[in-house]
Amino acid sequence: MAYKSDIEIAREAKKKPILEIGAKLGIAAEDLLPYGHDKAKVSQSFIDSVQGNKNGKLILVTAINPTPAGEGKTTTTVGLGDGLNRIGKKAVICIREASLGPNFGMKGGAAGGGMAQVVPMEEMNLHFTGDFHAITSAHNLLAAMIDNHIYWGNALEIDTRRVVWRRVVDMNDRALRQINCSLGGVANGFPREAGFDITVASEVMAILCLAKNLQDLEKRLGDMIVAYRRDKTPVYCRDLKADGAMTVLLKDAMQPNLVQTLENNPAFVHGGPFANIAHGCNSVTATTTALKLADYVVTEAGFGADLGAEKFMNIKCRKAGLAPDAVVLVATVRAMKMNGGIAKADLGTENVAAVKKGCANLGRHIGNLKSFGVPVVVAINHFVSDTEAEIAAVQEFVKAQGSEAILCKHWAKGGEGIEALAQKVVQLADKGSQFTPLYPDEMGLFDKIETIAKRIYHADEVLADKSVRDQLKAWEAQGYGNLPICMAKTQYSFSTDPNLRGAPTGHSVPVREVRLSAGAGFVVAICGEIMTMPGLPKVPSAETIRLNEAGQIEGLF
Amino acid sequence: MAYKSDIEIAREAKKKPILEIGAKLGIAAEDLLPYGHDKAKVSQSFIDSVQGNKNGKLILVTAINPTPAGEGKTTTTVGLGDGLNRIGKKAVICIREASLGPNFGMKGGAAGGGMAQVVPMEEMNLHFTGDFHAITSAHNLLAAMIDNHIYWGNALEIDTRRVVWRRVVDMNDRALRQINCSLGGVANGFPREAGFDITVASEVMAILCLAKNLQDLEKRLGDMIVAYRRDKTPVYCRDLKADGAMTVLLKDAMQPNLVQTLENNPAFVHGGPFANIAHGCNSVTATTTALKLADYVVTEAGFGADLGAEKFMNIKCRKAGLAPDAVVLVATVRAMKMNGGIAKADLGTENVAAVKKGCANLGRHIGNLKSFGVPVVVAINHFVSDTEAEIAAVQEFVKAQGSEAILCKHWAKGGEGIEALAQKVVQLADKGSQFTPLYPDEMGLFDKIETIAKRIYHADEVLADKSVRDQLKAWEAQGYGNLPICMAKTQYSFSTDPNLRGAPTGHSVPVREVRLSAGAGFVVAICGEIMTMPGLPKVPSAETIRLNEAGQIEGLF
Repeated sequence: MAYKSDIEIAREAKKKPILEIGAKLGIAAEDLLPYGHDKAKVSQSFIDSVQGNKNGKLILVTAINPTPAGEGKTTTTVGLGDGLNRIGKKAVICIREASLGPNFGMKGGAAGGGMAQVVPMEEMNLHFTGDFHAITSAHNLLAAMIDNHIYWGNALEIDTRRVVWRRVVDMNDRALRQINCSLGGVANGFPREAGFDITVASEVMAILCLAKNLQDLEKRLGDMIVAYRRDKTPVYCRDLKADGAMTVLLKDAMQPNLVQTLENNPAFVHGGPFANIAHGCNSVTATTTALKLADYVVTEAGFGADLGAEKFMNIKCRKAGLAPDAVVLVATVRAMKMNGGIAKADLGTENVAAVKKGCANLGRHIGNLKSFGVPVVVAINHFVSDTEAEIAAVQEFVKAQGSEAILCKHWAKGGEGIEALAQKVVQLADKGSQFTPLYPDEMGLFDKIETIAKRIYHADEVLADKSVRDQLKAWEAQGYGNLPICMAKTQYSFSTDPNLRGAPTGHSVPVREVRLSAGAGFVVAICGEIMTMPGLPKVPSAETIRLNEAGQIEGLF
Repeated sequence: MAYKSDIEIAREAKKKPILEIGAKLGIAAEDLLPYGHDKAKVSQSFIDSVQGNKNGKLILVTAINPTPAGEGKTTTTVGLGDGLNRIGKKAVICIREASLGPNFGMKGGAAGGGMAQVVPMEEMNLHFTGDFHAITSAHNLLAAMIDNHIYWGNALEIDTRRVVWRRVVDMNDRALRQINCSLGGVANGFPREAGFDITVASEVMAILCLAKNLQDLEKRLGDMIVAYRRDKTPVYCRDLKADGAMTVLLKDAMQPNLVQTLENNPAFVHGGPFANIAHGCNSVTATTTALKLADYVVTEAGFGADLGAEKFMNIKCRKAGLAPDAVVLVATVRAMKMNGGIAKADLGTENVAAVKKGCANLGRHIGNLKSFGVPVVVAINHFVSDTEAEIAAVQEFVKAQGSEAILCKHWAKGGEGIEALAQKVVQLADKGSQFTPLYPDEMGLFDKIETIAKRIYHADEVLADKSVRDQLKAWEAQGYGNLPICMAKTQYSFSTDPNLRGAPTGHSVPVREVRLSAGAGFVVAICGEIMTMPGLPKVPSAETIRLNEAGQIEGLF
C-alpha cells in the first residue's frame, strides 16, 4: 500500500475559512485578525472578555526520549485533539510555531503527520503570522540600543567585555556565532566581541511564551540583564529604556494564532522557545486562552518527558498557575526496539525481546510523571510494521506499571483512529489530579538542580565547579534564589551522554555553566555543549527549494 | 487655530473594512488576502486575471529639492488621489512602504499628512504585512549560503576577501557596519571582513520593486553578483542555488498591499528601495496592477525630481515599459524662500523677493521634466503662513515657464482642497505625452552618467578616476553596457554639495565609486558619501515609545 506524503495530504486538506473555525470557539469575526484566509490572531479584547469563563481540562502530551525511529509526539497531540472533538468534546490543540532558518538546512517539518496534521503547512514553515520576525526585531533593537548607549558616552558604565546580550537572526548562519563588531573607526563605535544566536534561542522568545499579558511582557523585558559593569553589577534592559519600544514591536506577536487540523478542529500555534536553554513550550497566552474556550486543551512539551514535561511542570505550570489534569506519554514499538539496542536498519524485523528491554525507558518516564501527582496514559503511536506480539509486550509492560497503553492509529485514520485514547483521557482528566511541582520555590538553586538530576534523571550526583556553585549563591543573594531551573542537556538520554539509551543509573550530571534569564524567570543549568546557532549542512535543502510552475513550493518538505 | 497632529487625525479615521475598499476596485473577497481588518494583499491569480484590461493614466508626483521647510510630496500624492476620486474619477494611489529601523531613531512618519493620509499609520510604521522581514530573510539566507559554501570546501573558489554580498537588518545599528565574522575556531568557518546594511539598501529590495512577476524575480535574484574569485570573475547567486529558496521566501512579499486614505480611497503601499543606491520607487507590480484597475494612478518618486523623477523615468519606466502621462511638481512657498537664501527661523515673515529668487530651483526642475516629453503642472502645497503675494509670485514665475502652478489645500481640507489640481491633471493626462527616456540603452555607461550630470544637474563635467572609467568599460565588455545608471548623490542640491541651493551652474560631479546591481539591472554611480547603515541618535525615539494604558502606541510619532 502506498501512502501519501504529509505535504500531499496537507495540500488536499479541505480547509474551512478561519472565521468558521473561530466561530466554533465563539470568536466573532471582528475579534479575529485574519492573516490570509486560513490563519488569524485572536484579539486582546476577546481574550479579556473570556477571563470569567471556567477553565477546561489541560492535557499534556509528552514522549519517551527521542530516537531516530521517531515517536510522533506532535502527530499524537493533533490526533488526540481531533479524537476528542470526534467523541463530542470541545477540544483545542496548543502547539509551538516552527523556526524559519532550519528549514533551509534540513527539510521543514509538518505540524503533525499523516492524517493528524495542522494546516496551512507551508505558511507555518515560512513567515506564518510574523511572530518570530517581531521577536527578532525586538531583540535586535535592544542590541542596537546597547551599542548606541556605549557610543554616545556610556553613562551606564557598561563593561564592553561583559555585554551578554547577543543579536539574533532566524537563519542557520555559523559565520555569525562569533564576530568582532563596531570596527572601521570612530564613527562605528568601540570594537568588541559579539555574536548571533538563532531567534528561537532569544530570551525574548521565552518571555513572550511565559508572559501573561502585555503588561507582564513589558515588565519581564525590563528585567532582562543585558550587560555587567566592571564591578559586575548588572545592567538591565530597563536601564536602556528599551522595554517600551520592544513591547510595541511585540504587541501583535503576543496574540495567539488560530489555525485548523485536517479535520477542521481549532489549533493555537503560538511561540516556540528552545527546549534546551529555554522551556520549550507554546505560549501561556495561547494555553490559558484555549482553556477558557474549550472543555479539553491538548498541548505538548519539547523533547522527551525528562526535559519537556519536567519544564512544563516546573516552569510553565508553576509560573502560569496551571495544573495538568492528565498526561499522555507517547511511545512507539520501533523506539522501544531502539532503546532495546536494535539498530535503525533492523527495526522492520519483529523482536519482542528488544521491545521488552527497551520498555525500561518508558517505565522510568511513567514513574517520573506520576511523581508530579498526575494520571498518565501511554499512547502507542502505531506504525504499519508493528506486530501484534510487540504491541502486546508494550501493553503488558505498562499494565504492570499500573497504567494503560492504548494503540492509536491517528496517523493513518485521523481522529477516528484515536477515539479509545480520547475516551481514556476524558476519564482520567475528569477524575482530576493532585499536581505538585517537583520542588518548592524556596529550595536553593543548587538543590533544585540536584533534585531534578536525582529524581528525574536518576543520577547519582551533580558535578559542578566552585565557580558554578558560587555563581548560584551570588544570584540567591541578589534575590533570584526563588527561580526554577531550566536544564539544558541532551534529549536523547536520561543522562548527559546521548548514546546511553534505556534507563541508565549510576551516572553523574556535570553542570558546565549556569546562566540567568532574569526576564523569563529561570536559571539555565548547562550540562554539555549547547548550540544556540546552528549551521547549514554541506548540501542545504535551500538548494532545491523553489516554486514550481503551478506556484507550489517544492523542496521544503 | 489649533491643528490636530497627523496621528490624532489618523486615529480618528473612519476606516472602512479593507474588503469594501477592494470591492471598489472589483477585487473579490477571495482575491484579497487580509492582514487584520484594514490591510490586504492582492492575490496573484487576480493580478493575472486583469492583464487584459486597458491601462489607466499614470501620474508622477515629484518635488523640488527637499529643504528643512518640507515640501509635502507624499501628502500631495495622497491628496491628489483623493481629489481625483472626488471629481468622479477612479483613482488609485501607489506609494512606498516605510522602513522599520529608523522609527526607533527619529520619530516615525505618517504616509502623507493632515487630512491627506494613508492609514493604518501605526502598522505601516511597524511590521505592516511583513514584506521587509521577508526581504531581510531572503537576503540573509543568501549570505548564510555563501559562508556555508566556503565552509564546506569552497568549490566555487570564492575569494573570501571579495565577498560583496553583505548582510542586512531593518534596524539602525552602526555597530554592524563593519565586522569580522566566522571567528572562534574551525567550526565557525574562515574569518573574513563583513558587514550589515539596513534592509531597504538590499539589492533584493530593488529587485522586488522592479520584477514583473515571480519568474522575473527569480531570474533577477539569480543574476545578482555575490562575490568574485581571485581572477576577478564573478560568482552569482545562481551559482549558490539560492535563487529558488529566496523566491519562496518572497512570494507573498511580491503581492501589492492594499490600504486606504482617510477618505476611504484605495492605496497600494508596496516596496521601499533606497533612493540613493537604488531607484527609490514603489513596486512595478503595484503600479502596473493599479493601472489595470483604475483610470488614474498617482505615484511618487523619492527625493527631488533631479534624483527621484530622473530614476523613475530612466529606470522604472524604462524597465517596466511604463510612460507617465503627466507630472505634478510639488513646491511650497516656504521652500522657495529657503532656496532664496532665507533661514528656517525666518520663514514666517513675508518675503516675495526671496520667493522669486528661490524659484530658480523650481524652474530648472520644470525644464528638466519637460525634456522627458511629459506635461508638467506645479502643485503649491499650501501652508497657513503663505501670503497671497508670495503665492502669486510663484504662480507668475511658473506661468512664464509655460506651465501652471495650482494652490492646493489638501493638508487642511483633504480631497476637497485639491480639486483644481485634479481637474488640471485629468486635462493634461488625457491629452497624452510623448515620453522618451533621457538616454538610449545603447549609450556607453560613462556617457550615460555625463548625460544625467549635464542635462539634469546642469554640471559642467563629470570627474572620475581611471579606475572608475576602467570598471565601467569592463562591465560593458561583460555585457552590462545596456544598463541604466542609478545616481547616488545628495538630494539637497542639483550639485553634489548639499549646501548649494537654487539652480547652481559651473559645478563638477565627482564619481567616487561605481557598483553593479546586476540583478536589479542598473549601475550605481556614487557621488559622495552614501550611508547604507544609519546609526541611532544620542536619545533615540525608542526610549519614549511605549503602549499606554489604552493600548495605544505613544512616542512613535
